[in-house]
This record gives sequence, structure tokens and C-alpha cells, in this order.
Amino acid sequence: MTETNPNEIVIVKSENSKINTVDFSNLIFGRVFTDHMFVCDFEDGKWQTPQIMPYQAMTIEPSARVFHYGQAVFEGMKAYKDENGKIFLFRPNENCNRINKSAARLAMPKFPEDYFFKGLETLLRLDSEWIKPGVGNSLYIRPFVIATEPAISASPAASYRFIIICSPAKAYYNEPVRVLFAEKYSRSADGGVGFAKAAGNYAAQFYPTSLAQKKGFDQIIWTDASSHKYLEEAGTMNIFFRIHDKLITAPNNDRILDGVTRKSVIQLAKDLGIECEVRRVSVKEIKAAAKDGSLKEIFGTGTAAVISPVSAFEHADDVFEIDQIKDSYASLFKSTLLDIQHNLSDDKHGWRYEIR
Amino acid sequence: MTETNPNEIVIVKSENSKINTVDFSNLIFGRVFTDHMFVCDFEDGKWQTPQIMPYQAMTIEPSARVFHYGQAVFEGMKAYKDENGKIFLFRPNENCNRINKSAARLAMPKFPEDYFFKGLETLLRLDSEWIKPGVGNSLYIRPFVIATEPAISASPAASYRFIIICSPAKAYYNEPVRVLFAEKYSRSADGGVGFAKAAGNYAAQFYPTSLAQKKGFDQIIWTDASSHKYLEEAGTMNIFFRIHDKLITAPNNDRILDGVTRKSVIQLAKDLGIECEVRRVSVKEIKAAAKDGSLKEIFGTGTAAVISPVSAFEHADDVFEIDQIKDSYASLFKSTLLDIQHNLSDDKHGWRYEIR
Ligand SMILES: Cc1ncc(COP(=O)(O)O)c(C=O)c1O
Ligand SMILES: Cc1ncc(COP(=O)(O)O)c(C=O)c1O
Repeated sequence: MTETNPNEIVIVKSENSKINTVDFSNLIFGRVFTDHMFVCDFEDGKWQTPQIMPYQAMTIEPSARVFHYGQAVFEGMKAYKDENGKIFLFRPNENCNRINKSAARLAMPKFPEDYFFKGLETLLRLDSEWIKPGVGNSLYIRPFVIATEPAISASPAASYRFIIICSPAKAYYNEPVRVLFAEKYSRSADGGVGFAKAAGNYAAQFYPTSLAQKKGFDQIIWTDASSHKYLEEAGTMNIFFRIHDKLITAPNNDRILDGVTRKSVIQLAKDLGIECEVRRVSVKEIKAAAKDGSLKEIFGTGTAAVISPVSAFEHADDVFEIDQIKDSYASLFKSTLLDIQHNLSDDKHGWRYEIR
Repeated sequence: MTETNPNEIVIVKSENSKINTVDFSNLIFGRVFTDHMFVCDFEDGKWQTPQIMPYQAMTIEPSARVFHYGQAVFEGMKAYKDENGKIFLFRPNENCNRINKSAARLAMPKFPEDYFFKGLETLLRLDSEWIKPGVGNSLYIRPFVIATEPAISASPAASYRFIIICSPAKAYYNEPVRVLFAEKYSRSADGGVGFAKAAGNYAAQFYPTSLAQKKGFDQIIWTDASSHKYLEEAGTMNIFFRIHDKLITAPNNDRILDGVTRKSVIQLAKDLGIECEVRRVSVKEIKAAAKDGSLKEIFGTGTAAVISPVSAFEHADDVFEIDQIKDSYASLFKSTLLDIQHNLSDDKHGWRYEIR
């Protein structure tokens, strides 16, 4: 499948950089893109010569299968720049593996690891000016794959396009979020595609989330679809609960995304001597802990927001406010992660990946 | 929302028809499209002036939300031509209502009914040569809506495109199909989007279906995700079971598509004096009926295939062959439906909709 040599990326540089038109102190997430994009087509059973080209609109048939059957997967990762101008990714192997797990579940071809890294690194070097130093600044990287075959039969496509686009970012959420525990709607089924970053998983959450927003909540914490008794994850974050000084988070399964930030937090907890149980978490337990005062924190983990503290939750019309404590685990993990990501601290697990 | 007058469709006709390049006796489903397409954009909170233009590739940003979050819904319907050249649709109101139900579940704007009909009718009149008379021939019509806003935040888009493309068709499946009852994978969750024609529901089925195909089965009959004990529907068909002379089909719920063919068959059964129970159907019951000989037929219903008889099913490594009987309900419903669709019989329920 990798007959083409990824070293032969065909590069067409943009003639005019847009960078001076961008207000980096005032970025809305995901609206501004860098000067270049990486594109690689899958045709005739193999990935063709990869290309880097000016960021631009694509030409695509209205019958392309992605529009009809949602055969599309994606990733989300970030690049960081330290004060010396060095550029780092955070555990990029995890994203490379995960996009291929997602692809396999949607009957899409694997994208070769060497193409992934070669393409990403070449792109980041070209657009390195777009990565601003300083904690909180980053370049959000969006690799994705879409089914392009122009034929509307409901079966896996024969042609695909792998693309990487990049968008300069500040932290995704700045404020603590108010969340609603799902009682009626669900995000994914046992035996479904919830563990994959499959495009369709996200649109499915928009309507229930809009209902939650009308009630004054920012996001939904999804529960298991069968009983709605167990807390699983949020729309783009895994979820941790702190009861007394112990952390609890739901185990991975075929409904829950295996988050890179989640697994990093579990490791950091171990390093820091914080007990972390990976097990089912019931709504009942969390409500009881909120009532008796032992629930100290809830926070979400994800690449976009890093760590997102929760300030309130609702379930069955009961609303619980969670006081934001000083010395929270949320802020501890956030600063620990940011320091590793921005090359400000030791990297004993080898999570940083330098782009040279 | 409907400030624009749908009568003002802007029409750009194709200069050269492709119709003479098409072998109508040798059509592969969904690969060839007619000369024109209908397009209407949603911008600034409203649907803009609709357009009919030559069928062509579109220009779309790589950041368009449909590629990332699967915010896309579709419909499938058919146009038929009788021997006098009259053109008919079959219960098109159902499709118009359903695409808007699907859209609502995916937090997408409603497409106005007058736009839908005006656009569809104008398009069909322009491309009427593509609809061939004769039972079995039809023009498959694919209305769909995609989120076009070029911004990758995981929330409902602000801009959309509604499109109709049309593809000449023969019957989708010709042979009876062999099916596998799902034991591990699932199609949709309670509280999910299974009832909607949401793009992502379809890609999610490709991989499990490919596993079934490796075992020699054409399709999967999905079971409920919680217990896998109850039979729900196939990938693009609802399912009926005939035990002795009685039909049984699963009730609609938020996991199952409310099929137009299904509801027509339920009505026709009533007209023909055939008992039809709409209730949960257990795997156990169907296996027992297959063993004791009371299971006479299983068939699927859907716009593409009309009625698709099942010749075998597998569950838990038990394979049951179903002898194809003469005077089957499947063939009775198929010919009854085709006759109504092709204006060959009375239409006492007013299901035909003539395009004038
Ligand atoms: C459904 C879901 N859960 C959790 C996460 C967090 O994963 P990660 O930490 O790898 O960004 C994401 C976002 O990437 C997600 O989409
Ligand atoms: C999941 C699913 N079930 C059933 C059907 C059959 O519905 P209809 O009879 O309206 O074509 C379809 C196809 O349209 C479908 O996609």
C-alpha cells in the first residue's frame, strides 16, 4: 500500500502569506487556517503522491460518499513552540494510531504512519510562523479523511482523501463549564462507533446539546445508552471526578473515545501519587458525593481545552453547584501538561516530539 | 425563513445532454447522474434563491463542517414514468417531512416544503428524458443537506447547502439476500439518531457488513443495541417476517427509520386482508419459527429495492435457509407497489403524485 515514497511530497508554496491579516490575540477557534494544507488521495487501492499546497477550497462531486454516508474520520492535535523557537507535538503517535483505528471501524484504508509524520512535519515547518510561543498558544492540527468516490451506493468508497489543515488557537474553553447529565439522549451504542472519531458522532450531539444550552448548560455528560445510570464522557472531552482526594474516570469501551489527555492525566496522577480509579461511575454515586460534600471536582480532559473544570451539573432537575477550590487537581494537571507541552519541564515519559 | 420566492428558481441549462452516452440497460446503482442538479444555500439565517444548474462538481472548503462532524442528512425517493409519458412520484410528502425530521435531530434548518416541491418538480421536468417507462425502471432521487460553514468548532453550522441529484436506476437488488442477525455490533442507540437519515448512520454499518459479507451474507439485520434480542431493521430496509400467514414487523422508535415502503406495506396488508402485527420481534421467536416450519418468509422493504426477499439468515452460528415460496407476500407486495408506482392500477390512498 505504501509504494509511493512519502519523501516525494509535491510542494506548491503559497505566494502570499495571510499571516499578517490575522489578529493572534483575538482568535475564534477553528476559523482561521494557515497558509498550507497537506493532501493525499487514495485511488486504485493505494495512497498516491502526497501534496502540500496553498490552503484552498476543494472541488468535489456532489455524489461523493462522505456527503451521503458520513464516511469520514478525524483527529485533533496541537503543536507548541517554546521560547527558543523549537516546535513540539504531544504524543502524536497516539493520534496517528487512533485515526487508523477510527478508519478501520468505518471500513476506510489505513493511512501509513510514515506518510502521516512526513506530511505533518513538512507542513509544520512550512507554516512554523503560525505557531506562537507562550503557554496557552498553540497550533491546532486537524488531520481528517473523507470518502470521495462519486457514487451513492451505501458501501465503502473506493477513493478517499486524507487532509491536514491547521488553525492557530488559544485555549478552547476559558471558563468553567456547566454540564447536564444525559437522561434521554445518547451519544453512542454498545457495538457502535463511539470509540472512533467518526464524523457522524459529533453532529448527533448538536441537538441535545442545544437543548442543554437553552437550559443554561454548556455541555452534556453522556451516560450509557441502555440505562443512563453511568457517566461516560462529554462531547469532546473525557471526564474525571474527584471524590475526597481520589480521582475516578470511566473505563474505555466501544462507546468512549480513548483520549490522549485522559491517558496522560491517569499517568500524571500515578506520578504525583494521586489515586485514580478507572471504573464505572454512577450518576447516583456522584449525586450522593455532591450532597455529602465529598465531591471536590469534576473536570474534562481533551486536546482542545486541555483541562476544563466543571462548575455545576444537573440531573433529574437537581442542580449541584461545585465550588472551584484552590489547589485543584484540574489546575495542577493543566499546568503540568502545559509545561510538558511547551518544553518548560522534564518529559520523563517521552511525550514531546520535536519537529526539526 | 421563506422570504425568497421559490418560484424564482435561477435556471442554468446544460449545453449538452449526457443522455446518449448512458447505457440504460446496464446501470450500476448511483454512478450516473442526470444533466441537472438543484442547489439551495442557507446563509444569514435563511434559504437563498434556489438554483438549477448543470450537474457538476462543487467547490467547498476543507474546513466545511460536514467533513468533520457529519452534519448531513439525506432522502431517497423515485420517479416513475408510465407508458403515456406521465411522470409520478410516490408519497413524496413523506420524504419531505422526513428530511426535515432528520434535519431537526441534527440541529439543521428545516427546508421549506414549497421549495422542496418546486425544486424537485422543475428538475424532473428538465431531466424527464432520463426517466424511462417500464416496470423496474425509475429515476432515483437523492435530496441531501450538508453543513458548509468553513469553521471546525463542534457545534451546528451557520451555513448549509440543500442539493438534489438524480440517478437512473434499475432495481437495486435483484437476488434474494442472505442476512446475518447482529450479535455484537449495533446500528443505533436508544436516544440516538437511528430514526434519522443521518449520514453517519450509514458509514457506521460498513465495517460490520463487510465482516458479514466475508462470511457469505449480503446484509445485517440489526438488533437492539442493549440486548441484541430483538430484530429491528436492515441497513437500508425495514424488515417483515411472515409466520404462517401473519406478518410481523418491528415498531418505529428512535432507533428505526420510519420507512415509506414499510408503512405502505402495512397499509396494503390491511387492504388485502393480511394480518400484520407491529410489535417487537425476538430473535428467539424467529429461530423457533424457522425450526418448526412456520416461518414462511422474511423480506425487506425500501425505496431502492422495493421488496427484497431474504433467502437465509444466520444467528449464533445457526444458519437457516428459507425456501422461496410461490405466491409469496414479498412478490405480491412488490407487484402491487410497482403497479401503483407505475400508474398501472388504482391508487385508492392517493400515493401517486403526478409531475405536470
Ligand atoms: C468524544 C471525545 N472524547 C474525548 C476527547 C478527548 O480526547 P483527546 O484527549 O485525545 O483530545 C475528544 C477529543 O478529541 C473527543 O472527541
Ligand atoms: C435505515 C433505513 N431503513 C429503512 C429504509 C427504507 O425506507 P423507505 O421505504 O422510506 O425507502 C431506508 C432507506 O431509505 C433506510 O435507510
